[in-house]
Amino acid sequence: MEHLLLTGRTNERIKLCLAVRKTAKARRENGLFFLEGARLCADAAACGTVISLCLYTDRAAEKYPDRLETILACAAQAFRITPALSEYLSETQSPQGVFCLCEMRQTQTQIDPHGKYLALSFVQNPDNLGAVSRTAEALGIAGLIVENGCDIYNPKAQRAAMGSLLRLPIVQTQDLCALLADCRAKGMHVYASTPDSTAAKVTETDFSGGVVCVVGNEGNGVRDEILQSCDKVTIPMAGRAESFNAAAAASILLWEMVRGETS
Amino acid sequence: MEHLLLTGRTNERIKLCLAVRKTAKARRENGLFFLEGARLCADAAACGTVISLCLYTDRAAEKYPDRLETILACAAQAFRITPALSEYLSETQSPQGVFCLCEMRQTQTQIDPHGKYLALSFVQNPDNLGAVSRTAEALGIAGLIVENGCDIYNPKAQRAAMGSLLRLPIVQTQDLCALLADCRAKGMHVYASTPDSTAAKVTETDFSGGVVCVVGNEGNGVRDEILQSCDKVTIPMAGRAESFNAAAAASILLWEMVRGETS
Repeated sequence: MEHLLLTGRTNERIKLCLAVRKTAKARRENGLFFLEGARLCADAAACGTVISLCLYTDRAAEKYPDRLETILACAAQAFRITPALSEYLSETQSPQGVFCLCEMRQTQTQIDPHGKYLALSFVQNPDNLGAVSRTAEALGIAGLIVENGCDIYNPKAQRAAMGSLLRLPIVQTQDLCALLADCRAKGMHVYASTPDSTAAKVTETDFSGGVVCVVGNEGNGVRDEILQSCDKVTIPMAGRAESFNAAAAASILLWEMVRGETS
Repeated sequence: MEHLLLTGRTNERIKLCLAVRKTAKARRENGLFFLEGARLCADAAACGTVISLCLYTDRAAEKYPDRLETILACAAQAFRITPALSEYLSETQSPQGVFCLCEMRQTQTQIDPHGKYLALSFVQNPDNLGAVSRTAEALGIAGLIVENGCDIYNPKAQRAAMGSLLRLPIVQTQDLCALLADCRAKGMHVYASTPDSTAAKVTETDFSGGVVCVVGNEGNGVRDEILQSCDKVTIPMAGRAESFNAAAAASILLWEMVRGETS
């Protein structure tokens, strides 16, 4: 079956894609998010993401037949688009010509009291969010805990995550403080990372059993309200403390959380 | 003293800045690199970078008086520029209006046989290069070893590095294989990281004394020629192996290299 060709920017579907790509508000209001790229869209389909619309160029159909087949098998609707529309929709310099509108995932509400979780307290940078989720998945972390303000469907974060934000269990919460108190009540260790060198070193911290470790914003770190209720841990540094970026610090923390189990 | 105001894009200094910002070739030919941002330029001045030209807007002079003072004290030449020229020169969305042309650093030629070094085998992504250098500096690594093709003066890498590429000792080499053989001859441990799960685990690797650890390209990893001459190490993963990005893997390796000494 040949899909219809869309050519105009004023088409309602194109307008919806662009709106959802551009703002968190449009994503929330429509319950949809926007993905770009043959590999990322195919990975989304492969892990059960509900694809409500797929748009692709004829060139993409030639170049990525297998990936497109995976995507189209899961897509409720599909249309061909012109190269000009592909350029218009794309956020990348060399668009591959494959785009999907997907339904937001059901996030988890339950936390496994024996699992290891990373909680992100307002990590704003989408590249960092994506990088952290990749590392978390690679290391076999039980899941991410994010606050409602954290935009896991930001297209940049999704691209940097290479699908891990679609596969990792994600718990969203309006009240991180209450959720952490609940974890503590269930017997989990709850830590917050800080550059404060007087805090306990990660190398001397007990990460056995169920653990939640909170990492904060680049720049401001974990906010006081949360920091005060948690045991503080720090990555001991020999060099210039300010030189740690949020994703690097999170990588090392994630590694320390699972280090004893992988070795 | 009030600096002269430059207003035109055809001014030779503006043309030089743009050329040096844009291509590695222009940087090499002029022995210069381009920095943007009040903090980054002030950090460059503070660590002894030779600043041949500073350009700033009147707005920047009001907003960043202290940083500008640090920069201007070290700048051989300085000019004011219009907001339009600042937009024209900037690679960022909200330019701060502070720009410097700096002389490339003298790179190191000596390797301390008791030091810990990270060698980058064709890490192309400038954001990764910057992130890795930040982590290396934070953890007190002795230095970075880069191949000649690695563009440490790429403006994106410099921004992501937040000055660490200007402060860290950097050894540049045309022949990484020969340099690694030389390190081995001096009694250093030389490792190459690989996703190959049959390699020795980083947790079971001897990082005491002098160490060089080679990390490779995102995607291709360390090239065979080098891999074959090195002891291989791997970060054991419980999850999806392909989900590790180069900067995250380097962060964990750097951490393991110094872990015994910081704890």
